[in-house]
Amino acid sequence: MTKIPTALEILRRIEDGTMTCEALVRICLQRIAEREPTVQAWQHLEADTLLDAARRIDRSGTGLLKGLPIGVKDIIDTVDMPTSYGSSIYEGFHPARDAACVALARHAGALILGKTVTTEFAYYQPGKTHNPHDHGRTPGGSSSGSAAAVADGMVPLALGSQTAGSVIRPASYCGCVGYKPTLGLIDRTGVRPFADSLDTVGVFARTVEDAALFASVISGRPGLRIEDQSLRPQIGLSRTHEWGMAEPASAAVLEDAFTRLRTAGLNIREVVLPESWRGLSEAQKTIMAYEGARACAPEMLTMPDRLSAKLREFLQIGVAIPHEEYDRAKVLAAEARAEMADVLDNLDVLLTPSAPGEAPQGLQETGDPAFNRVWTLLGAPCVNVPGLTGSSGMPVGIQVIGRVGDDARTLAASAAIAQILSAG
Amino acid sequence: MTKIPTALEILRRIEDGTMTCEALVRICLQRIAEREPTVQAWQHLEADTLLDAARRIDRSGTGLLKGLPIGVKDIIDTVDMPTSYGSSIYEGFHPARDAACVALARHAGALILGKTVTTEFAYYQPGKTHNPHDHGRTPGGSSSGSAAAVADGMVPLALGSQTAGSVIRPASYCGCVGYKPTLGLIDRTGVRPFADSLDTVGVFARTVEDAALFASVISGRPGLRIEDQSLRPQIGLSRTHEWGMAEPASAAVLEDAFTRLRTAGLNIREVVLPESWRGLSEAQKTIMAYEGARACAPEMLTMPDRLSAKLREFLQIGVAIPHEEYDRAKVLAAEARAEMADVLDNLDVLLTPSAPGEAPQGLQETGDPAFNRVWTLLGAPCVNVPGLTGSSGMPVGIQVIGRVGDDARTLAASAAIAQILSAG
Repeated sequence: MTKIPTALEILRRIEDGTMTCEALVRICLQRIAEREPTVQAWQHLEADTLLDAARRIDRSGTGLLKGLPIGVKDIIDTVDMPTSYGSSIYEGFHPARDAACVALARHAGALILGKTVTTEFAYYQPGKTHNPHDHGRTPGGSSSGSAAAVADGMVPLALGSQTAGSVIRPASYCGCVGYKPTLGLIDRTGVRPFADSLDTVGVFARTVEDAALFASVISGRPGLRIEDQSLRPQIGLSRTHEWGMAEPASAAVLEDAFTRLRTAGLNIREVVLPESWRGLSEAQKTIMAYEGARACAPEMLTMPDRLSAKLREFLQIGVAIPHEEYDRAKVLAAEARAEMADVLDNLDVLLTPSAPGEAPQGLQETGDPAFNRVWTLLGAPCVNVPGLTGSSGMPVGIQVIGRVGDDARTLAASAAIAQILSAG
Repeated sequence: MTKIPTALEILRRIEDGTMTCEALVRICLQRIAEREPTVQAWQHLEADTLLDAARRIDRSGTGLLKGLPIGVKDIIDTVDMPTSYGSSIYEGFHPARDAACVALARHAGALILGKTVTTEFAYYQPGKTHNPHDHGRTPGGSSSGSAAAVADGMVPLALGSQTAGSVIRPASYCGCVGYKPTLGLIDRTGVRPFADSLDTVGVFARTVEDAALFASVISGRPGLRIEDQSLRPQIGLSRTHEWGMAEPASAAVLEDAFTRLRTAGLNIREVVLPESWRGLSEAQKTIMAYEGARACAPEMLTMPDRLSAKLREFLQIGVAIPHEEYDRAKVLAAEARAEMADVLDNLDVLLTPSAPGEAPQGLQETGDPAFNRVWTLLGAPCVNVPGLTGSSGMPVGIQVIGRVGDDARTLAASAAIAQILSAG
């Protein structure tokens, strides 16, 4: 049972000639052959053509992601693979073009290994994926397959997206790094929309450094790469208005982690979020439902029977939201965005739980994005730092949150935190 | 040569039984048969099936847009008609689904008469359309066909989009109403992206009331409809930082119009825009190029030869923009948005020229969006009010600009201004 190395390690080995892309793809495919019957992370696998592509790259390929196999969440268009958006309506659908993020990854030398399972249109109706650590539990959603495939060592990198908590939550449940950048940092062209004000493309990786590399390439921002590992971040600890939703056992694990960060010499101080932010979670729900009802109108108006009952119900809620309520939610979000600099006064990042606790039992639900909604709404960069373990032995993640546009520092702080926590 | 009536007049006649949808479609098709050889507004016409659809609506149809034929800019997806985005790359391409705005228009009873000509991916490489008032002149762009078709009385309503000035400018050049709503008011799902921070779906109509009706239906905001015509708007006159670009003859026409509005009893006072706004036009250009380079990466990286030289050059500029410059432009825009309430202190709307002057001679360029960039960047609602005539006998428009989210008032003010100018 061979997990593949990290992306940076692979690139080093390819560079120094101790690994070929072909060998790497064979490792991925072998790992998938062993594990996919249990995990079911993939909607579509491009095994047949991939070895040829790897050999081509071994002969003459180049690029910052040279030869790295990646998974692509199946709400993201691929020109050479079917894209079904997690819905039977689009079974076998072939887009006319790659999404921008896919085209940019390919251009940098990445190999698209396949499409990973998503919930229906990235809402809550689950796909077939199981949590790789306990197949009786959800991997989280909506980027279920991307999180599970990376956490299980099938592929070093994967693309996902977040509208409520669809990158950070599955990363926390599956135990890998999830990075949801500042809204708009990775272009959304060719990604199925759900809520225009919220939809954010993100990435999954085994380390923060790998996530930073991947995002830097597909956003064209070399400055995101973590070159300097000396940052001692100033940390705010926010128990947030949703803290009461954290499960006691998981809260205890987190408190212990905070103690370890303090012991390692990091400054951590409590931050109290403005009282006016109490409404932000509800505002996120309002915006998501209102915009979702419009974005999904083509399917909802012409083939409602082919949507899940769960999604139909949500879209009906969205249609019924008065536009005054939506407008108020947008204003509240804009005001909170303007206050964020003050909230993070003199701090580099905030820490909160990534999710209420370990991945819930069962596959009928994908868990609760309660700890993610606010930060998605604010458009702030968030990283799930894995490495902690809950009382059932399942992964528990810490969410690292930065200022809008301050992605490089957020990633560097996350790397520093990950290093301390992994040192035990 | 029968121009069709306004949308509201059509709906009244259909309601009281003095017009059928079938007869209406026949009028549109006849007008198109007469004029299309000269104007060339349509990329695709659905003449064959449209009479059947009209008869079905006459028998049992319903909806707020019952039986109204509309044109759809060809960067907007239609499930039953080819959508080529103004590019030979997508010739004959059939999308899997309607765009959200198209689905909502159909659901309200509208008939999609066809796809209107767009520039290439809604950038500046022109399509085949001529200005209906002088076929040696540009109709403007990028929503060239939608503006020309509505202004020429081929169809009462059409969908367009604006990233720099692609609704307001062609409406001004062709002499019809163009309404670019607050960013996001009409959902963009299924509309080809160019610049995610800027792309805004808008509408064309013969009257402000018609534009308000159309937008109200496809946004689900009944409050946009102009019921109360008694508004006496408080008006700010902004010569803007671009005023020097207005052609003298057109500037004189506008000054005369302002005098008439004053004579009719409206309060108009000069507004000086903040000095810091001087950089907004450049910021819009930076954001458009940077985001465009990412959104068009799939085509640019795999088939650059099939893009126009004009577009390729722009995308190369976009790729080369340092992300710090883009980030600064976004910050500048956010700061200006926050200042907009103060700029409009006690005013309902601002007036500026819609374009530097009459439609330029020739079909190789689509004119300059100099007077539109700032307001698109700010996400503010804008209306082109037609009715003035320049020194060459071509239409000259006034741009009415409101606060973000204040679309209902902006439309009502535009209707009041249009009424005074048309009485003149």
